[in-house]
Amino acid sequence: MATSSLSLLLISAGIISVLLQAASASKTRHFKWEVGYIYASPDCNEKILIGINGQFPGPTIRAKAGDTIHVELKNTLHTEGVVIHWHGIRQFGTPWADGTASISQCAIDPEETFVYRFRVEKAGTYFYHGHYGMQRAAGLYGSLIVDAADGEAEPFRYDGEFNLLLSDWYHQSIYDQTVGLSSKPFRWIGEPQTLLINGRGQYNCSLAAHLIEGSNTCETTSKDCAPVVLRVLPNKTYRLRIASTTSLSSLNLAIGNHKMVVVEADGNHVEPFMVDDIDIYSGESYSVLLTTDQNPSSNYWLSIGVRGRKPKTSPALAIVNYSPNSPSKLPESSPPIAPEWNDYNHSKSFSYRILARRGAPKPPQSADRRIVLLNTQNKIDGYTKWSINNISLALPPTPYLGSMRYRLKNAFDAGTPPENFPSSYDVMKPPTNPNSTQSSNAYVIRFNSTVDVILQNANALAVNVSEIHPWHLHGHDFWVVGYGDGRFDEKDVARFNLKNPPLRNTVVIFPYGWTAIRFVADNPGVWAFHCHIEPHLHMGMGVIFAEGVEHVGKIPKEALVCGMTGKMLMHNHLP
Amino acid sequence: MATSSLSLLLISAGIISVLLQAASASKTRHFKWEVGYIYASPDCNEKILIGINGQFPGPTIRAKAGDTIHVELKNTLHTEGVVIHWHGIRQFGTPWADGTASISQCAIDPEETFVYRFRVEKAGTYFYHGHYGMQRAAGLYGSLIVDAADGEAEPFRYDGEFNLLLSDWYHQSIYDQTVGLSSKPFRWIGEPQTLLINGRGQYNCSLAAHLIEGSNTCETTSKDCAPVVLRVLPNKTYRLRIASTTSLSSLNLAIGNHKMVVVEADGNHVEPFMVDDIDIYSGESYSVLLTTDQNPSSNYWLSIGVRGRKPKTSPALAIVNYSPNSPSKLPESSPPIAPEWNDYNHSKSFSYRILARRGAPKPPQSADRRIVLLNTQNKIDGYTKWSINNISLALPPTPYLGSMRYRLKNAFDAGTPPENFPSSYDVMKPPTNPNSTQSSNAYVIRFNSTVDVILQNANALAVNVSEIHPWHLHGHDFWVVGYGDGRFDEKDVARFNLKNPPLRNTVVIFPYGWTAIRFVADNPGVWAFHCHIEPHLHMGMGVIFAEGVEHVGKIPKEALVCGMTGKMLMHNHLP
Repeated sequence: MATSSLSLLLISAGIISVLLQAASASKTRHFKWEVGYIYASPDCNEKILIGINGQFPGPTIRAKAGDTIHVELKNTLHTEGVVIHWHGIRQFGTPWADGTASISQCAIDPEETFVYRFRVEKAGTYFYHGHYGMQRAAGLYGSLIVDAADGEAEPFRYDGEFNLLLSDWYHQSIYDQTVGLSSKPFRWIGEPQTLLINGRGQYNCSLAAHLIEGSNTCETTSKDCAPVVLRVLPNKTYRLRIASTTSLSSLNLAIGNHKMVVVEADGNHVEPFMVDDIDIYSGESYSVLLTTDQNPSSNYWLSIGVRGRKPKTSPALAIVNYSPNSPSKLPESSPPIAPEWNDYNHSKSFSYRILARRGAPKPPQSADRRIVLLNTQNKIDGYTKWSINNISLALPPTPYLGSMRYRLKNAFDAGTPPENFPSSYDVMKPPTNPNSTQSSNAYVIRFNSTVDVILQNANALAVNVSEIHPWHLHGHDFWVVGYGDGRFDEKDVARFNLKNPPLRNTVVIFPYGWTAIRFVADNPGVWAFHCHIEPHLHMGMGVIFAEGVEHVGKIPKEALVCGMTGKMLMHNHLP
Repeated sequence: MATSSLSLLLISAGIISVLLQAASASKTRHFKWEVGYIYASPDCNEKILIGINGQFPGPTIRAKAGDTIHVELKNTLHTEGVVIHWHGIRQFGTPWADGTASISQCAIDPEETFVYRFRVEKAGTYFYHGHYGMQRAAGLYGSLIVDAADGEAEPFRYDGEFNLLLSDWYHQSIYDQTVGLSSKPFRWIGEPQTLLINGRGQYNCSLAAHLIEGSNTCETTSKDCAPVVLRVLPNKTYRLRIASTTSLSSLNLAIGNHKMVVVEADGNHVEPFMVDDIDIYSGESYSVLLTTDQNPSSNYWLSIGVRGRKPKTSPALAIVNYSPNSPSKLPESSPPIAPEWNDYNHSKSFSYRILARRGAPKPPQSADRRIVLLNTQNKIDGYTKWSINNISLALPPTPYLGSMRYRLKNAFDAGTPPENFPSSYDVMKPPTNPNSTQSSNAYVIRFNSTVDVILQNANALAVNVSEIHPWHLHGHDFWVVGYGDGRFDEKDVARFNLKNPPLRNTVVIFPYGWTAIRFVADNPGVWAFHCHIEPHLHMGMGVIFAEGVEHVGKIPKEALVCGMTGKMLMHNHLP
């Protein structure tokens, strides 16, 4: 008896110790944020923008896999609501924390506080941003870096790291931009004025050229818009975490004289491959390894240029500064030049090389359902829109999560949106009938089923125009199982890569091409799937996936205070 | 029996007929409005502004005394809340319809609809405008004209009328303006670019001069900013309804060669008096009678200039067009020139002439309480503010009406703000200690008591600067019982005009002067009393009066959905 009690005690002690260890390893990280307007000069042109705690970009969140993030967010904008989306975070069990207005929650009103509390499951390079109106384009974004859990290691080695959050910048306010997009006649907001690296860029000046000629006309002396400096030691390996939260621009990044090895995409390990430059689309993130194996007496340019649209925005430049050189020592070689904006073969060859790291989990070998989504530019009552299978997404006043969870009628349009488009549709030509309709209807997906989505690109309204669209899925990673040119065909299924497709949360469709993804609908909630180009989403380019909503836990009431759920709360008709 | 029944029937018929008559006389007037951004070019410089149903200024409401106004207001701004204040309407019995964010209601969220339903008791010239952030300055305003009830007549005759809603216009967005005002160091928004008449003005051009010299460089061909034309017949009398909803400017209005007879101020009849020009401050309205007794072969300029601040904004011009002259026939005489901006004697002599029309109700002959309000410019933690008795008003997240009605603790700062200021304070000099504090505390006033308020002006932060402040009281008219220069003194009470003081809802304090008002606290509710200059209110220049809140009826829940009342609604803790 005595021995037995003792061993029980010892076993218990052991269990408690394990529990304590687990508890100490997984932390809750608390942040107290105030979102409000600040003056800032990201490109040395002053503008008001949306900052967090007075900072632009917002503070970097750094955590370890398994940690819980707790952000107490107070809205101190004067008259506007706000939400923040945690881009790439799955929100398993916390779909109300996804931070999407009209989808996962009601916008947080001025002076109100909302708590975002969610677990970061997986190490990787993520970011966060506004997801209400076009507030992301107003500067509401920042980095979210998740390190491997204690005792875990990344499957690659590096001596140091740098974080590069890329964005593009307009001098026009987002109010002007938004009204232009929803005007008749349509007013296009044009190309951004500046590309930013970590919130800094140089407007209207070829910094490199000027610096090289010794006639620097840019105000690079102001630290607000001075080039970012990456201070490195020779013969080391650095991890560059690169994420893009651009409003419009697709980007290309290269470093003079150096190659890079791609090791991570959207928080997932990829089979390492070496490149001279990487393409990065809005909503994507990469980690690349940079080995400082070049002549250490020189510095080198890191250059970011525009892809996929005729560039009217100067490249953004940063300096890779080999220690102990002065950071102001000009690189001897010119900044790398991005490939021609419309060299899509270059882009495709990069995308096609991204494959899952050996040993990564494989996708289910078949899908339960296939949804084909035709991307078209359309007209509705003279307004220019983007549509998916001829439906332009109009977000409802009552967020889907609440209205679906509580089975409210008439909170959004009934019926299932189309699963395909007419076989007669010619994706290579402008729509013969550009008229489309708006709707808030949603795809309801059987819980735990496997879904293939074929994103089919097409010709826009103008002849010979087909644009790049980076599609981002909330609540999931998906496998990118195939790409193709022209129209997707049944026989393309046989060519799907089911062996080592990469897991991503964002994937691009190339002009006149298609991209096939597969995912398992295992995350109870309502999730947006949309083009990550801010004006395109604003013009209706997205769809809604709902899965296992009956398994969603108790939604915090603070997320339900608007629309029909708000009225029900008001009259005590919600549980 | 038969006779008796018959007479009963006849009597009943008579009563019914009277009831029917009453019913037909007092109408409920329904309006369905959508508030949203539109492009407009009020001064031929395009800008986005807040319009109603696509119009700027918003639609004119026209009703008869005794009517009920029912406005179903849908907010179609993308991310911003909105409210509308019905300036000059008493809101007796409907304090939740006063349209003041943080005071009478929660802001209406995007996509939500709020019904403003209230009675217009008294014929007169009113207007409505945004009362959240600085949305009034974004163009959210329009006219509200109440005609005499059927069978009632105004105590003056006229053959026709014109409505002139005056405003000032900035090219800078209200977001920029707002952030500037709440920045450290303070950034003053400067003088407006243009004065507008009914939403039209001419930027950066002396229209008159140009027209006269025949070299019109202004784009007056565009109807957006063409001068307003008042088409008149000779030898008639016209009522000009003039209201000012300027953000900053005090104005003076005159008509070449013509005199005007003032007959109405803020919806109250005044003893008619003849003037060459009138001063009008933000928040005020007047009716003047214009007799077209001048040479009918000519047209005449109506000119509006800036008072009280060194004018950097060109006068606004309209044309009084004697029929059958062409409206484009240039007036032979130059536009009237406003008095020197700092000729306060001119302003005072005008204000002092405004007296109640003979037979108007007299004020109570004594007051139960006197509150002296010292107006000072201050610093709080380096921010520039306006304070009243050294307290700068900081509006609370929970509107007072709900938090007071339901006796919530901690919804706003406790304690009564001071009723006076130190006798040692020298109003003629900058504050010796400019530090002030922010608070949301309120003056609670005994229901049905009579209150005197002495508005005491003082020197601002800079030496030899004392500004004009037009103070507007919600929920009441008040009697203006006295004005004086320098510091108010007990002996001034004896000089109060209790015989024929005018009833107003807005009154000015002149530089270094004081103004005394008297009102009866007979309207259950919570009412703002504040400087009507938009940036001044934003900088804290106001106080809160609460009276008879226990008599307030059931507040619509839609007015309570924010802050602490929102949380209580959410948890079913409100009746």
